[in-house]
Amino acid sequence: MTAPIELTGNLIIAGNEVKGTQKPVSAVNPATNQSMEPLYAGGTETHVEQAANAAWAVFDQFKATDPETRALLLETIADEILALGDVLVKRAMQETGLPQARIEGERGRTMGQLRMFASVARAGKYLDVRVDPAMPERAPLPRADLRLQFVPVGPVAVFGASNFPLAFSVAGGDTASALAAGCPVIVKAHSAHPGTSELVGKAITSALSKMKLPAGIFSLLYGSGRDVGATLVAHPHIKAVGFTGSRAGGTALMNIAAARKEPIPVYAEMSSINPVFMMPNKLASEARSLAQGFIGSLTMGAGQFCTNPGLVILKDGEGAEAFIDEAAQAIFASGTQTMLTPGIYGAYCQSVQLLVDNPNAQLVAKGKMSDAETNQCQAHLFSTTAEAFLKDDSLEGEVFGSTSLIIKCGSEEEFKLVAEKLEGQLTATLQLEEADYEEARALLPILERKAGRILCNAYPTGVEVSHAMVHGGPFPATSDTRTTSVGSAAIQRFVRPVCYQDLPEALQAPAIKDANPWKVPQLVDGK
Amino acid sequence: MTAPIELTGNLIIAGNEVKGTQKPVSAVNPATNQSMEPLYAGGTETHVEQAANAAWAVFDQFKATDPETRALLLETIADEILALGDVLVKRAMQETGLPQARIEGERGRTMGQLRMFASVARAGKYLDVRVDPAMPERAPLPRADLRLQFVPVGPVAVFGASNFPLAFSVAGGDTASALAAGCPVIVKAHSAHPGTSELVGKAITSALSKMKLPAGIFSLLYGSGRDVGATLVAHPHIKAVGFTGSRAGGTALMNIAAARKEPIPVYAEMSSINPVFMMPNKLASEARSLAQGFIGSLTMGAGQFCTNPGLVILKDGEGAEAFIDEAAQAIFASGTQTMLTPGIYGAYCQSVQLLVDNPNAQLVAKGKMSDAETNQCQAHLFSTTAEAFLKDDSLEGEVFGSTSLIIKCGSEEEFKLVAEKLEGQLTATLQLEEADYEEARALLPILERKAGRILCNAYPTGVEVSHAMVHGGPFPATSDTRTTSVGSAAIQRFVRPVCYQDLPEALQAPAIKDANPWKVPQLVDGK
Repeated sequence: MTAPIELTGNLIIAGNEVKGTQKPVSAVNPATNQSMEPLYAGGTETHVEQAANAAWAVFDQFKATDPETRALLLETIADEILALGDVLVKRAMQETGLPQARIEGERGRTMGQLRMFASVARAGKYLDVRVDPAMPERAPLPRADLRLQFVPVGPVAVFGASNFPLAFSVAGGDTASALAAGCPVIVKAHSAHPGTSELVGKAITSALSKMKLPAGIFSLLYGSGRDVGATLVAHPHIKAVGFTGSRAGGTALMNIAAARKEPIPVYAEMSSINPVFMMPNKLASEARSLAQGFIGSLTMGAGQFCTNPGLVILKDGEGAEAFIDEAAQAIFASGTQTMLTPGIYGAYCQSVQLLVDNPNAQLVAKGKMSDAETNQCQAHLFSTTAEAFLKDDSLEGEVFGSTSLIIKCGSEEEFKLVAEKLEGQLTATLQLEEADYEEARALLPILERKAGRILCNAYPTGVEVSHAMVHGGPFPATSDTRTTSVGSAAIQRFVRPVCYQDLPEALQAPAIKDANPWKVPQLVDGK
Repeated sequence: MTAPIELTGNLIIAGNEVKGTQKPVSAVNPATNQSMEPLYAGGTETHVEQAANAAWAVFDQFKATDPETRALLLETIADEILALGDVLVKRAMQETGLPQARIEGERGRTMGQLRMFASVARAGKYLDVRVDPAMPERAPLPRADLRLQFVPVGPVAVFGASNFPLAFSVAGGDTASALAAGCPVIVKAHSAHPGTSELVGKAITSALSKMKLPAGIFSLLYGSGRDVGATLVAHPHIKAVGFTGSRAGGTALMNIAAARKEPIPVYAEMSSINPVFMMPNKLASEARSLAQGFIGSLTMGAGQFCTNPGLVILKDGEGAEAFIDEAAQAIFASGTQTMLTPGIYGAYCQSVQLLVDNPNAQLVAKGKMSDAETNQCQAHLFSTTAEAFLKDDSLEGEVFGSTSLIIKCGSEEEFKLVAEKLEGQLTATLQLEEADYEEARALLPILERKAGRILCNAYPTGVEVSHAMVHGGPFPATSDTRTTSVGSAAIQRFVRPVCYQDLPEALQAPAIKDANPWKVPQLVDGK
């Protein structure tokens, strides 16, 4: 049992609680539209400056910590989050409208991520150490001793996401992978869950204190994206940015980062409509169960996932009508769910209305409506033709919520044309059976160009945290298609390679020494 | 013996020779300022479009080739370049003013790079294959079968460099690594060596033909960077850019790439002044030999290297005067060398004049002058104080040629302040002996933040092509500090990760199959 933590509404700057001075926000319970205590006053440029300076001041020290220290820090953060107990779960539920099981599951996922990055830090594979020993006798020129390791890039700005108040927020995947790499982190809290953010921020601060590590490794700021967020990304001490959110928000940060005197990488996970291709034989044999699975994935969590299946592509023919009929019935039977914020609810209604008003889209079905609570997501299913989709770019816009569009194709050729038309995606799904393999083989190279994850006979919601996961993809799914924001490879976003030529052994970092005290993998002469 | 190749001045678009229609350029022999036949008429937007469409049309096919095919292609290109024989060597000498031994050495290096990337393709480590096997019994949720591999990003635009007409040009490191990854390449030839470019372009085209690979894998365009270059980088079918050249040129491409509807990565290797820190004990004991080594590195190849030592930092004290005196004598004794182009010569003279006119810099010595040939680089050595350097940003500008600036510091603290003041660098050098280790230990974390390669008791010119090399560094040394443009890790610039979830074995790419027919390293469950 730990003492209950009182929320203060204070910024956390290198362990110090500081009251913001800008326009305050308070959390709103989306199920009731009622505001919650306390007020969170926004930070100023001075607060950004203080946090950035504090991170910069401790960067060299944090960079030099051994993997075990960083691993223990991450594990201690996980313990501290768990120690917050029901206080955290309840506050997160109130601030997001998400049910208890979901928040508890997400807490488990967040702790799992922190522990996985602890093991990634310990394993040291991400350091990609390479040793090319000296060849003093080589002719015509001798070769020097060359040793490569990846080092942390510097302080990282992390923007919490609205839809995962724990797993993609203050101590989410971006923070965990940046800390594992040895980068101090400054989080710009999402205004939708400031209390949850404060609680988790205090857990991180407490973990740093328990580990006797400098408090400057972590700061937590509130305020508007335009002020605090933009100032943070433009600050010369910030060397990389992690963001999960809207396309507009992500591209704004990309533009700020590109316009800096020293441009820096932005890892923004933004916008994806996650096409699901129903291959003809599979559709013919399992139309109704496919439809049930689809609507289950679509309506889960009010569709507020970046991997929500927003597009279904199928061919006229056996099973097509049955699929649409069954999906329509499932939508019709679906109840409402509270959306994360009034703003997200408003944007959802607007996006749905655009489809309702679009002559290229036909409403197939919509879910029940409820007046019991506010900000209720009513599921919608629309359909269009491939011909219309290929002409009308607006049909490719992301609708954040339980709305999907079925594209009816007349031929295999149209299937491919629709695939080629797509922008970059986090996922692309194939529902197929063996008789569909040949057609799938023609589609795969296209999908591989479009998506970071290709999945078969499942739906894209649900992202495993593991070594082989890719939660990324070509723009606009992310700002940087070479990376992933989920899974162990996410740490590579926050490191850069340095080569040491003939550096005396006494000055070598442990990872590149022949004695290899950290026991990290070393590629010697390419082997 | 092969038949002599006649230069035509034609663009090569997917194997077809096409006459450009824009303002022509001809190569100029910088030693005589005489123009050489033939004229190279610039390409148009239509030519860019044709080359990009051709590359796009064959991308899926090239992507699907096995590593052995790509390796043989690279080895065949190396053979075809060698088969050009003296024609290539002579033309490159005439177009660059570089001596025969240098061009022959660079040809060897170019072939070595092509062969190294052949072995990188064969080894398959760069694919970073990860397999997380399915866990159907896992509670509360089963795990799907997840397989990750890196796939080529798409067609790559490569900009040839002026200072390495072979190793960083048409078939240089960018092209070799992109082809090894499975990316088609469109080269914008450097206008300073169009004939060399045409010869090498024909060697690549011939290799593709011999390998019976589609000609669209390679195109070669002439024309201005502003027209052909900018159009190429903006083309939606281009998915990455490799560039070696000036800061102005590189940042222009970065801006174009960032402003695209789909932003793409730019790998620009741009600007570095490569600081050399003379540690006090080393300087005290070896001042004169250090000075000789320094001037040897500075004047090699008229200083036209991205790793040219443009800055020497030393402390007043024992050895300092001896070092400066010896360096001055060596500079004074140095003869002139032909620079690569009249434009580069003009820019060099202008940069030197800025230092001459700058009251913060004192001329220490200059080399002999020669009127025998045109565009002769006269070496210059300047000095300044740490105090002046810290105030005057202009002293940090790159001078492309044999000119360097000595910064005299009064204290260890000033040493560190100068290091902190530096922008991003390709290299940072420490001249040190054991008694200097403690002071070096304080400097290393700063240099690690600033440079991609840290070297000891050598000078930075000379870049080994190996596994542990990093030829990269923070902006403005490069546009992307997470990468290298030399060494086997350079291939990672042109690939992106894709995860396959429950993809049937029959549809899996060879690299991710359990049977592993390509015998690539596979990380199974993180091990």
